[in-house]
Amino acid sequence: MNKKIYVAGGDLRLYHAYQSILKKGYDVIYEKEPSEKNTAEADILLFGVPVTRDNKTLFLPQSDKKVYLSDITKAIDKNKLLIAGKIPKGIFGCKTEDLLLRDDFAILNAVPTAEGVLEIAMRETDFCLSGANCLITGYGRIGKVLSDRFNAVGACVTVTARRDSDLALSSALGFKAIQTADVINHIKDFDIIINTVPYLIFTEEVLKNASKDTLLIDTASSPGGVDFKAAKSLGVKTIHALSLPGKVAPKTAGEIISDLALKIINGF
Amino acid sequence: MNKKIYVAGGDLRLYHAYQSILKKGYDVIYEKEPSEKNTAEADILLFGVPVTRDNKTLFLPQSDKKVYLSDITKAIDKNKLLIAGKIPKGIFGCKTEDLLLRDDFAILNAVPTAEGVLEIAMRETDFCLSGANCLITGYGRIGKVLSDRFNAVGACVTVTARRDSDLALSSALGFKAIQTADVINHIKDFDIIINTVPYLIFTEEVLKNASKDTLLIDTASSPGGVDFKAAKSLGVKTIHALSLPGKVAPKTAGEIISDLALKIINGF
Amino acid sequence: MNKKIYVAGGDLRLYHAYQSILKKGYDVIYEKEPSEKNTAEADILLFGVPVTRDNKTLFLPQSDKKVYLSDITKAIDKNKLLIAGKIPKGIFGCKTEDLLLRDDFAILNAVPTAEGVLEIAMRETDFCLSGANCLITGYGRIGKVLSDRFNAVGACVTVTARRDSDLALSSALGFKAIQTADVINHIKDFDIIINTVPYLIFTEEVLKNASKDTLLIDTASSPGGVDFKAAKSLGVKTIHALSLPGKVAPKTAGEIISDLALKIINGF
Amino acid sequence: MNKKIYVAGGDLRLYHAYQSILKKGYDVIYEKEPSEKNTAEADILLFGVPVTRDNKTLFLPQSDKKVYLSDITKAIDKNKLLIAGKIPKGIFGCKTEDLLLRDDFAILNAVPTAEGVLEIAMRETDFCLSGANCLITGYGRIGKVLSDRFNAVGACVTVTARRDSDLALSSALGFKAIQTADVINHIKDFDIIINTVPYLIFTEEVLKNASKDTLLIDTASSPGGVDFKAAKSLGVKTIHALSLPGKVAPKTAGEIISDLALKIINGF
Repeated sequence: MNKKIYVAGGDLRLYHAYQSILKKGYDVIYEKEPSEKNTAEADILLFGVPVTRDNKTLFLPQSDKKVYLSDITKAIDKNKLLIAGKIPKGIFGCKTEDLLLRDDFAILNAVPTAEGVLEIAMRETDFCLSGANCLITGYGRIGKVLSDRFNAVGACVTVTARRDSDLALSSALGFKAIQTADVINHIKDFDIIINTVPYLIFTEEVLKNASKDTLLIDTASSPGGVDFKAAKSLGVKTIHALSLPGKVAPKTAGEIISDLALKIINGF
Repeated sequence: MNKKIYVAGGDLRLYHAYQSILKKGYDVIYEKEPSEKNTAEADILLFGVPVTRDNKTLFLPQSDKKVYLSDITKAIDKNKLLIAGKIPKGIFGCKTEDLLLRDDFAILNAVPTAEGVLEIAMRETDFCLSGANCLITGYGRIGKVLSDRFNAVGACVTVTARRDSDLALSSALGFKAIQTADVINHIKDFDIIINTVPYLIFTEEVLKNASKDTLLIDTASSPGGVDFKAAKSLGVKTIHALSLPGKVAPKTAGEIISDLALKIINGF
Repeated sequence: MNKKIYVAGGDLRLYHAYQSILKKGYDVIYEKEPSEKNTAEADILLFGVPVTRDNKTLFLPQSDKKVYLSDITKAIDKNKLLIAGKIPKGIFGCKTEDLLLRDDFAILNAVPTAEGVLEIAMRETDFCLSGANCLITGYGRIGKVLSDRFNAVGACVTVTARRDSDLALSSALGFKAIQTADVINHIKDFDIIINTVPYLIFTEEVLKNASKDTLLIDTASSPGGVDFKAAKSLGVKTIHALSLPGKVAPKTAGEIISDLALKIINGF
Repeated sequence: MNKKIYVAGGDLRLYHAYQSILKKGYDVIYEKEPSEKNTAEADILLFGVPVTRDNKTLFLPQSDKKVYLSDITKAIDKNKLLIAGKIPKGIFGCKTEDLLLRDDFAILNAVPTAEGVLEIAMRETDFCLSGANCLITGYGRIGKVLSDRFNAVGACVTVTARRDSDLALSSALGFKAIQTADVINHIKDFDIIINTVPYLIFTEEVLKNASKDTLLIDTASSPGGVDFKAAKSLGVKTIHALSLPGKVAPKTAGEIISDLALKIINGF
C-alpha cells in the first residue's frame, strides 16, 4: 500500500482522522484548505463531511478562506478515489464513496451522539440520571445505542417504536416498550425525553401532556421531531442537539472517519 | 370482550399460556387434547406451536392419544380465529395467525433461548463464563440477545456478522466484531462458541483450528451450522440446542404465547 | 407524626429537601435564613450541610444576610432535634444528628458525585468515554460507584486499592485491579484518571509518567491527592472536583438529605 | 525462583491449580495422594482446601486411599511453607498460610459461587430469570457479586442488609434495598430468594409468608439460614447449595487457588 492519501478541509474531525491515519504508517498529508496541487498529486482524497454545503465552495469551518469546488475538481482524474460526505453527483470525475450514505458510518457515530446526549442531559437537569424516568422515541440506530447508555447509568428507560419486531427486541433487551403513537398517553411520566425520529411526534397536543419539569432533547435532523414553537409557549424545555459527534468527541469522530476510510481504501 | 377462547393441545407452554389468559379474566378453557365439541363452541382457538408435524394428526407431546386434524377442522367455521404455529395452508376454514411467521414471536423467544444457552454453557464447562472468551456467530435476533446476556455475566464477547451495519452496531454496543467469513482465523481463541447462523459455518476446515477445550453450542434449526461428524472426529465438544424456550422456561415461553395471542385477539 | 419541621439556611439542596418533605405531607416550613422565632416554634430543625463554616455565623450561600449562631442557639431547647452537617460540639443545646458523620449519607452522595465526574470527563475530553482507558484510584464508597458508572458507559476501567480484599472484590466485579502503590508503573496507559484517595498519590514523580493527553480529576477533599503545582508545570490537565452533588444535581442531593432526615425523624 | 512446589491431595481444584502453576514455568509436581518422600523434597506444599476433615487423615476426595497426617508431618521441617485450607494448629512444623482465613480467597470464590447459583436458579425454575423478582439476603462478599450477576441477566433484584451503610451502597449501585429484619413483610413478592447470611433468617414464621412457587437457594455454610424442615412441611422448595466453586467451575476455582498461592509464594 503506497498510495498517497490527502486529507483536507472539513471540520476538526478531519484533522483527527489525519492524525490517526498518520500513526498507522500511511503516506498521508493534511491541509486545512484543499489545494489544487496536492489534490492532483494524491491517489486518495479524504475531504469534509459534508464536502460542500452550497455546491459551489468546499465546507471549511476550520478556515476563513474560500475554496471553489471548480478549482479542486479540475485537479481530479478518474483514477482517484474521493471519500467525503454528501458528495454532489457528477461534479467529481472519479470514484466516490459517500460516508453519509453508509449505514455503518451512521451507527458508529451513534456512540459519540449518545455520549453527547448524556452530557447534555446531565448538564441541563438538576437531578441525577440514575433513577430518572427516561423516554427514547425511535428504536433505530441511535435509539438502540441511546437506550443502552441511559440504562447503563441507571435511568429507567422506556423505548418507543412503530414496528412490533422493534418493540419485541427492545423488550427482550430489558426495556419497557410502547407504541410511538401512544406517547401522548405516557409523556407525563418522564423526566427526560430524547427524540430520534425524523418526523413530527411532539406536536402541541402531545406536549400539552408533558410535565413542565421535563427536558426534551431532539437529535433528529432539522426540522426535527418537535414543535419547538409550541414547546416554548407551553414552557417545555427543549434542546435541538445536532451534529454531536464532531462537537463532543471530535477525536473519536475523526477516528470513525479514518477507520472507515482505511477500510474503503484497502478494498479499493 | 366475551369471546370464548379454547386453548388445546401443544406442549407444556400451552398449559401455561392458558393459566396466564385465565388469570387475566378471559373466558377460556383448556384441554390436553382438542375435542370437536369444544372447538365448535369456541370463538378463538389457541393450538400447539407447531399445530401438527405430519399434516395428519395434531402435535400433542403432552398426551398419548391421537387426534386427527380432520376431526377438528370439521368443527371449524369461517367466523373463528385459529392461533398456532406452522399452520398448514388451506386445511382450516377460518382466519389463522401463525406465530412462527411473526418476527416479534421469534425475538421474544430469544430471551428464554439465551437463558437456556447460558445454562448449558455453565453446566457443560468446568470454568466460569465470567472472564471466558466467547464467540457468537450471527448478529440477528438471537445473536443480539445472546451477546447482551453473555456480556452481562462477564464473558469477553466477540460477535460475527456479514453485513457492515451489523458489525458496526455490535461494536457500537461494546462488542468485538469480526466478519463471519473470518471465523477460521480466530476460532482458536475461544473457550465457548455459540452459533446462531442457519447454514454451514463450522466446516471441518474451520473446526480443525478450534481448541480441543472449546465448547460449541449450535442454536440453529436442523441441520444447523456445524459439521457435527467432523466435530466428533476432531474431538470438539458440540451441543445442538433446539427448542430451548419450551424446555428451559415453559412458563415464560407460555406467557410469550399468551401475550401475543391476546394482542392478536384484541385486534381481531 | 405531627412534629413541626423547620428547614432553613444551607444551599440549594435544603430547598429541594424542603420540597420533598412537603410533598410527603409533613408539617414543614422553609426559610432561606433561619429565624429565631421559627426555630423556637419547631420540633425538628434541618439546617445547612455544613451548618457553619466559621463557627460564628450560619452557612447561607443562598442569602446575602448574616445570621449569627448565637441568635439561633438561644431559641433552641433540649427537646428539639437538629439535623445538619459539621455541627460544632457544645453549641446547640439539643439532640443533634450530623449528616456528614454518617456513612450512608456519604455513600448515597456517591451517585451524584459519580454523575458529576462523568459529566466533567465527557465535557473536558475530545474523545468518547466508551472505549477510553480509565483509572480510578481508591475503591471505597466513591470508587465503587464511580467504577460501576464508568464501566457502564463503556470505559475500560482499572481500579486501585491497597487492601487485598478490595482488589479481590473489584476483580470479582469485573474490573482490572492494581495496587495503589503501583500506579507509577501503569499511569501512562490511561486517558482519564479519577482520584478518590485523600492523600498524596499523584506526586511529581508519578505524574512524570503520565501521558500529556491524560485528564486527571481529583474528587478528594482539599488538599486532595494530587500535586497540582507539579501537574501544571508538567502539562497534565487536572480538575479538582469538589462538592459535586450540590452543584450537578441539587434536587437529587436534596432528596438524599430529606430521605435521611425523615428516617432520623421517624426514629426520633 | 527455583523453589520446588508440591501440589498434592485435595479435590479436582488442586489438579487444576497444579496445571496452572505448571504452565507458568514453575518447578512443580502433583500427586493425588501426598507422599512422605515428595513432601520432604519440596520447599512449598500446596495441599487440599480443607487439608483434613477429621484431623487424622488428609482430605482426599479424588482418591480411595487413606493418608495419615502423621506420615506427612514427619517429612516437614521448619523451612517449608504449607498453603492449604483449615490447617489445624500446631500439627505442621512449618510456616502455614490458610486460604480459608483470607478475605481475598472468599471474595474471588464469590464469582464461581454466583455462577453456580445462577445455574441452579435457571435449572430449577420453569421461568426466565430475566424479569423475575429476586431477593438476595445479605450484602457481604457473596451478596455483592450475586446481586451484580442476577441484575446482569435481567432479574429485578432486591437486596437486604442490616447496616445502613450496606443498604445505602446497594441502593447507590441500583438495587432495591430492605432491612434484613423486614424480609417477613416482603417475602411473598419474590420468585427466587438467595440467602447468604449464616444465621437463621428463614424461620417457619417467615416462610409462611412465602409464595408456594418460590425457589429458595441457601448458600450459607451448614446449618445455613433456613429452617429446612419447616420449608419442607410448608411446601417451599429449598436447595442448600454448598461448595459451589469446586463443583461448578473446578478449573476457575483451581486457578483462584494457584493465583493466590503464587502471590504468597513470591512474597515468601
